[in-house]
Amino acid sequence: LSPLPAIGIDAGGTKIAAGLVAADGSVSDTDERPTPQRSQQEFLDALEAVVRGRLEAGPAAAVGLGVPSRIDQVAHRVVGTVHAPLAGIDLAGYIEERSGLPTFVDNDGNVAAVAEWKLGAGRGTRDFVMLTLGTGIGGGLILDGRPYRGGHGAGAELGHMVVDVDGPPCGGACRGRGHLEALASGTAAERRARELGYDGSRALVAAAHAGDARAVEALAGIGRVLGEGMVTIVNVFVPEVIAVGGGFGRAGELLLGPAREVVTSEALAPGRDIVRIVPAELGAEAGLVGAGLVALDSLAERA
Amino acid sequence: LSPLPAIGIDAGGTKIAAGLVAADGSVSDTDERPTPQRSQQEFLDALEAVVRGRLEAGPAAAVGLGVPSRIDQVAHRVVGTVHAPLAGIDLAGYIEERSGLPTFVDNDGNVAAVAEWKLGAGRGTRDFVMLTLGTGIGGGLILDGRPYRGGHGAGAELGHMVVDVDGPPCGGACRGRGHLEALASGTAAERRARELGYDGSRALVAAAHAGDARAVEALAGIGRVLGEGMVTIVNVFVPEVIAVGGGFGRAGELLLGPAREVVTSEALAPGRDIVRIVPAELGAEAGLVGAGLVALDSLAERA
Repeated sequence: LSPLPAIGIDAGGTKIAAGLVAADGSVSDTDERPTPQRSQQEFLDALEAVVRGRLEAGPAAAVGLGVPSRIDQVAHRVVGTVHAPLAGIDLAGYIEERSGLPTFVDNDGNVAAVAEWKLGAGRGTRDFVMLTLGTGIGGGLILDGRPYRGGHGAGAELGHMVVDVDGPPCGGACRGRGHLEALASGTAAERRARELGYDGSRALVAAAHAGDARAVEALAGIGRVLGEGMVTIVNVFVPEVIAVGGGFGRAGELLLGPAREVVTSEALAPGRDIVRIVPAELGAEAGLVGAGLVALDSLAERA
Repeated sequence: LSPLPAIGIDAGGTKIAAGLVAADGSVSDTDERPTPQRSQQEFLDALEAVVRGRLEAGPAAAVGLGVPSRIDQVAHRVVGTVHAPLAGIDLAGYIEERSGLPTFVDNDGNVAAVAEWKLGAGRGTRDFVMLTLGTGIGGGLILDGRPYRGGHGAGAELGHMVVDVDGPPCGGACRGRGHLEALASGTAAERRARELGYDGSRALVAAAHAGDARAVEALAGIGRVLGEGMVTIVNVFVPEVIAVGGGFGRAGELLLGPAREVVTSEALAPGRDIVRIVPAELGAEAGLVGAGLVALDSLAERA
């Protein structure tokens, strides 16, 4: 275990959250600021300022950065990014040069999965899947006891599994259709809520919690589609736990109950009997904690 | 490398094929017989006779057995089997006791993938996916340079990814619906062929090869659904190669051309640019060769 903490940064489309992350996952010296949207340079300047700010509190061993993008770890480039102006750059190299610290960049879904696996809903498991339901759907995989990122480190895009060949387009950087993200993300819930006359997905969830049957059924419908995606996950990975986090994931049992029913009735044995479908435990800090832990682990592997 | 060969056995629903498989994948002393369907004991007796027959030709280091079933490698049991009467038994233990040889049982999709990875369409790759289109759809995954079987060794069931939430049931041991197997297997093609008035899937493929536009379009439709399944595979695994084998897979470019178009237009970067979608190379012997190679590798790992 590294005696020094890592600087963990969760650089999302809305805000940049950061902190010093110790090897045991404890966090100090946190910082949060809005994500600059005007230019790539402003975004990079903000990241540099966040790193410098943390280093004023004391030394760090490495920088870990979670971004809402696919990373090609072979080409050392950010590939395909939706919510942050990062495409095409060697982000790790950029921060490394300016901070003098070893820097590791990873997909935000992956770092959240690592945090939940080490400290949250996936503790003690060997095969663990994390789904983060937000603007999109992020995914993270722990397979055979270690994080799995796909070829070139650019995979594990569980939000972009096809669940409906006749489904709606994802939009943005994804040219696919009928993906889990297009049907069960917070954005999909927002659209469904407004179709039904609710003032957005938060209002839909609040109405369902208050017992509104139409709202309960609307969320159950989304939960069942989420469950179909989980059937694919169970049949391919046979995980011990699937954890669901993210802002829309806070709808909790309103989604997870119907999803669980689909998995129980439609997935194969033995996976359907092995898997537990549970809420994520770490909340909004999962991203920065996971980014810090990934940096410390990657540093140890490099040594 | 083991100086002795392994006995490789591909125990399918129709026939049991076996041979002595050397560490370089070369095969000798082959045998093929129909699969007894009447009872589990008859099936086990046939496997035992196949092993004894191979041992008459010379010594072997191990037995490898590929079966059309999910194996729970933790509970040492065959779990969920459709085309062979094997459910619930410790097949490896049974053969090991009777042959005196270390015995390794694996899913038929996995062993075919190992063979194609070592000797066929996946040679030299680090991330490789095999789909076998037959009565069902078998799958096999090579991830980060080694075979991946899912938690409990019971996963990688790529034929049971959901691609259509409103799709038809799989039937048999699978209670799911809209799985790739229900829409793009040889059985699905058979059904589609008869709906269109062709005398089965072979006649459909033959008509398409002869230029029959309706037959070409029917196969293209199946190929596009296959392509949707491949979009999930590319977005999750970013493989270098997806190889397609099996009896119905011999339709070749009639399926692969349309599948490739879907992947190119709907999968994410960089996976869509990295992946090559190709026919499997080893043909019907892939199963027994892969079973032998898995046995030799597992023996080396155990030592």
